[in-house]
Amino acid sequence: MTQVPLEKKVLSENDRVAALLRARLECAGALSLNFIGSPGSGKTAFLERTLQMLPDATRAAVLTGDLQTEADAKRLARYGYPVRQIVTVGACHLDARMIEKHLEGWNLNDLDFLFVENVGNLVCPTSYDLGEDAKVVVLSVTEGEEKPLKYPGIFRKAELMILTKVDLLPYVPFNLDLAIANALSINPDIEIIQTCSITGTGFGEWLRWLALRVDEKQSSIVVGSGTVQ
Amino acid sequence: MTQVPLEKKVLSENDRVAALLRARLECAGALSLNFIGSPGSGKTAFLERTLQMLPDATRAAVLTGDLQTEADAKRLARYGYPVRQIVTVGACHLDARMIEKHLEGWNLNDLDFLFVENVGNLVCPTSYDLGEDAKVVVLSVTEGEEKPLKYPGIFRKAELMILTKVDLLPYVPFNLDLAIANALSINPDIEIIQTCSITGTGFGEWLRWLALRVDEKQSSIVVGSGTVQ
Repeated sequence: MTQVPLEKKVLSENDRVAALLRARLECAGALSLNFIGSPGSGKTAFLERTLQMLPDATRAAVLTGDLQTEADAKRLARYGYPVRQIVTVGACHLDARMIEKHLEGWNLNDLDFLFVENVGNLVCPTSYDLGEDAKVVVLSVTEGEEKPLKYPGIFRKAELMILTKVDLLPYVPFNLDLAIANALSINPDIEIIQTCSITGTGFGEWLRWLALRVDEKQSSIVVGSGTVQ
Repeated sequence: MTQVPLEKKVLSENDRVAALLRARLECAGALSLNFIGSPGSGKTAFLERTLQMLPDATRAAVLTGDLQTEADAKRLARYGYPVRQIVTVGACHLDARMIEKHLEGWNLNDLDFLFVENVGNLVCPTSYDLGEDAKVVVLSVTEGEEKPLKYPGIFRKAELMILTKVDLLPYVPFNLDLAIANALSINPDIEIIQTCSITGTGFGEWLRWLALRVDEKQSSIVVGSGTVQ
């Protein structure tokens, strides 16, 4: 009997689609971020506050994934940006094909940012390239400081860690210094921003991070190809 | 080319091993519970408090799963019961074979309870029977009241929902009545116990639940086969 390395095959097909997506986003100068965190880590609340605080004239769109319900898309649509729900009907992660399908009809040239909120899961989404510029891991202070050690895959792959719900620090047994040390022990290059989506703590720093990254991307288009999309 | 329904085959092999485990646990009169919840939902803290509060002479053991680290086993071992860590090395769930392997050398006849703490994940562990008497879903009040609707699979399969961290209710935007209504809308038979592992809130009710279930199981052995293990 011939053994079929199925996972490898699925991932390689995913990589093919992701590479096409990346090329399209590159050409359009749109910065794509893939947000990965546990259920309840605060991904949607973080994106809501982000959309609310983006400077006027920012061009952003959101794809949000869940096994079931359109709840998150409804929450996110209140801020006036294009939002689409991806219902995975049981699948534990988004894949590049789902992104491609749900971008249909949108002109990427009209975007500065494409925010992708993955299914709540610290494990499975880690393996799937969605053509993003960076993975962002979302960790709440209610989850415990040892999470980077227990789920090293996503902390290794993420360029940025958003620590959410810091307003709850006085009420939970969370060692902030140790959490940061644990994340850096897995990925010495990871950047960390401490936030609270209710109070807006940390969103100045986060918006500066976004501005810097999109500027870098859009400048490189001018320098690289001589054309601005 | 012949298509191989791989997931079905994997699950059916898992079911075969799970059935054997269930038969062994049945014969021994040991109640097995499979705890499933997000990373950081408080599964380990809940089990720690449980071990601390079990009546003297209770015979319990714990298997605890994580992608990496022995951290949870070390925490749980402090209460004097046998504990083993299952390191999945990247896998997003426990399967019956892992349970079988990690029970080696333990005499199930010496147990009233086998607590199995699954990998932190609301999706993938749902599909894998571990031979348990019941799945228990662990949801913290910091995660949001819509989780039963977004992850219906586990709330449908669980017999009991442990709501954790209720001491944080004054500080988080969590609608308790709605959370309960959402869980019951998915599974009208699910039982719900509200707890806080730091203060011990709800553990009286939980220990009564455990006592009732293990009594039922051990009584049925006497009636059913005429032998007490």
